[in-house]
Amino acid sequence: MVTEIPRSEFQDRIRRIQRELDRRNLDAYLVHGSEIDFANILYLSNHWPQWETAGIIVPREGEPALMIGPEAEPFARARSVIPRIHKMIEYRESAEPDYPGIPVSTFGDVFAEVSGGRGIRRLGLGDWSILPMPVYEGVKKAVGPQGELIRAEDIVSGMRTVKSENELALIRRAHEITEDALGEVIGKIKPGMTEKQVVGIALEAMYRRGAECEGFTQYVFAGVNTRAAIFRATHKKIEAGELIQLNFGARFGGYCSAIGRPLIIGKMPAEMKRFVQFGLDAHQRTYEWIKAGVTASDVAKKFHRYYEDNGFGSNHLYGPCHGTGIIEVEKPWMETSSDYPLQENMTFMADTFVTTPDFGLRWEDGIRVTKTGVEPFSGKWQKIIEV
Amino acid sequence: MVTEIPRSEFQDRIRRIQRELDRRNLDAYLVHGSEIDFANILYLSNHWPQWETAGIIVPREGEPALMIGPEAEPFARARSVIPRIHKMIEYRESAEPDYPGIPVSTFGDVFAEVSGGRGIRRLGLGDWSILPMPVYEGVKKAVGPQGELIRAEDIVSGMRTVKSENELALIRRAHEITEDALGEVIGKIKPGMTEKQVVGIALEAMYRRGAECEGFTQYVFAGVNTRAAIFRATHKKIEAGELIQLNFGARFGGYCSAIGRPLIIGKMPAEMKRFVQFGLDAHQRTYEWIKAGVTASDVAKKFHRYYEDNGFGSNHLYGPCHGTGIIEVEKPWMETSSDYPLQENMTFMADTFVTTPDFGLRWEDGIRVTKTGVEPFSGKWQKIIEV
Repeated sequence: MVTEIPRSEFQDRIRRIQRELDRRNLDAYLVHGSEIDFANILYLSNHWPQWETAGIIVPREGEPALMIGPEAEPFARARSVIPRIHKMIEYRESAEPDYPGIPVSTFGDVFAEVSGGRGIRRLGLGDWSILPMPVYEGVKKAVGPQGELIRAEDIVSGMRTVKSENELALIRRAHEITEDALGEVIGKIKPGMTEKQVVGIALEAMYRRGAECEGFTQYVFAGVNTRAAIFRATHKKIEAGELIQLNFGARFGGYCSAIGRPLIIGKMPAEMKRFVQFGLDAHQRTYEWIKAGVTASDVAKKFHRYYEDNGFGSNHLYGPCHGTGIIEVEKPWMETSSDYPLQENMTFMADTFVTTPDFGLRWEDGIRVTKTGVEPFSGKWQKIIEV
Repeated sequence: MVTEIPRSEFQDRIRRIQRELDRRNLDAYLVHGSEIDFANILYLSNHWPQWETAGIIVPREGEPALMIGPEAEPFARARSVIPRIHKMIEYRESAEPDYPGIPVSTFGDVFAEVSGGRGIRRLGLGDWSILPMPVYEGVKKAVGPQGELIRAEDIVSGMRTVKSENELALIRRAHEITEDALGEVIGKIKPGMTEKQVVGIALEAMYRRGAECEGFTQYVFAGVNTRAAIFRATHKKIEAGELIQLNFGARFGGYCSAIGRPLIIGKMPAEMKRFVQFGLDAHQRTYEWIKAGVTASDVAKKFHRYYEDNGFGSNHLYGPCHGTGIIEVEKPWMETSSDYPLQENMTFMADTFVTTPDFGLRWEDGIRVTKTGVEPFSGKWQKIIEV
């Protein structure tokens, strides 16, 4: 069983970036990561910063460097497949300790080292949307007044979009763990438990079954709390007869999963069932619209039209799909503006939300795009769930 | 029992910022938050972004605005004590959806609204170290070529340093939940469990006991994995006779706790016990050096000297204390460079690390600075723990 990405695949990723730097005439490439937005750091080094942030600089030729905060060296050495590691104040934690006595490098030091003394003038940036000011100011100074900072997020995000066999194996395993944990929760959920308490039961089951951790803040919502697409579980006690929404997702070997199911304790009222069943129909229909070569926006347009044609136009909030991988939600999305062709081994969350004034519901499963359709990563409990 | 910060206290916080803006001749104040670094957003609005980020703009007079991503309006309306909410593309999630059809505001729109049409020229920034480029570029454009962006992190971080009675009540309750959960784990931990599995047991116990969530990624390390100050639990199976380090911390009502204990399954070897006992002695001695009026660096210097005087100079890595509150690690730290006086109702983690080539150990407890010493928030199992 594949339990992690092999070192050779990490090295291939670096080489692919270097080929692209050569093509674009860039001297180096910089990615950034925090504890929550760590995808490109994990993708290139297997490091996952905690408390601190991290950066990776990939020169056009030669070996990359991992840049970390002053406190994390043993942690980074245990995880990183990139052996060249620099401690830097720009990557310290947001509580901004001084760390008297810990020697640190500057961007100037690191740029000189990775470029073999030639320096870096044209620097491609891989993480503009999360790049924090101290890092931006540091690299701006290091490239000098003649230097250029060039946005190039598409280099790494493009690579991450189509998954390798190892990545797919990890995503499949993550979904198996989540599906088994979901089964446990469905067997254990009872009126009087708080939403938070059910989150705890799900987490204990996932960790016991080999998960690395939760892939996102787990969703357990009941009653009106199901209405929002983004929310946090509360201390509300779950009652029989109200809609309960569970969205769980374990992380395994660096990759995410998610399974979302609406359910009820007791018998589902007919009017509620009408919405829940429509959502499931739309969800399953989405699978039929997807295969390699289809333009992503076509799927989104068909999804919207399906809501309208069936009289649920005002119940549309969100969907049908977003990319998934290291982060449970990552590029690319499938929106009506998404004019790219679906490719084999792209992975998505089919994420079907139906909103009403009283409740919302969401069917969610991971899928892989194939030449002829989709490979679903999960599929249990795709039915009206009454416990 | 206090379970959350009352609305009036949030409003007082805004008024305090406005008085300081007046004193510094600033037109407004901007704070920023992500899912992991959300402290100032939570502190001023009770919102806690997920997937997306968020900002708050506080004008010198009048009412503030919460700025969120396009997807989170029902979520933010359910949480935020600031009723004026704007959806903005700069705060979207890092997967960068287009959100066709969702109307969004610009910084120009929001600045005009909160300033009553006068505009904002001198803008104080409260979160430089985590401010991402799209927000920086957006506010730079909105203040215009004559505008000034002025770093002023100290306004809000200074306010957060000394805790109110409500804040203290929440921190105390968070520690009670953690202490009870730690007791459960000490009763359940067995050889053959993985580090991750024990994390799951702790989380289930915390959520069941009323925690909001974990306050940081929980630490369960065994054997050599105890050596690093920052690390992540692994799939390693715990064995009898090796040092096990547990650092747990529940969040309650927006505030953190942490309790750290080294323990062993079986009988602790004498040489290991010597280090564990020294750590506990240093930990308890730290309490004696702390009271209101003492300069923080004096505590750090005494702590370092205590290691040296007792022959443990080479076992010093970290410590003695860092600030705590909304984030488990927040300003101010107690370092040898920390030239500020301790004040009553500042809260810290006493965080005593002892490193050796084979293992590391950490005693950690939250404390409040009092006029005469400290109030510890936890204290159980401050002894050699053999289970």
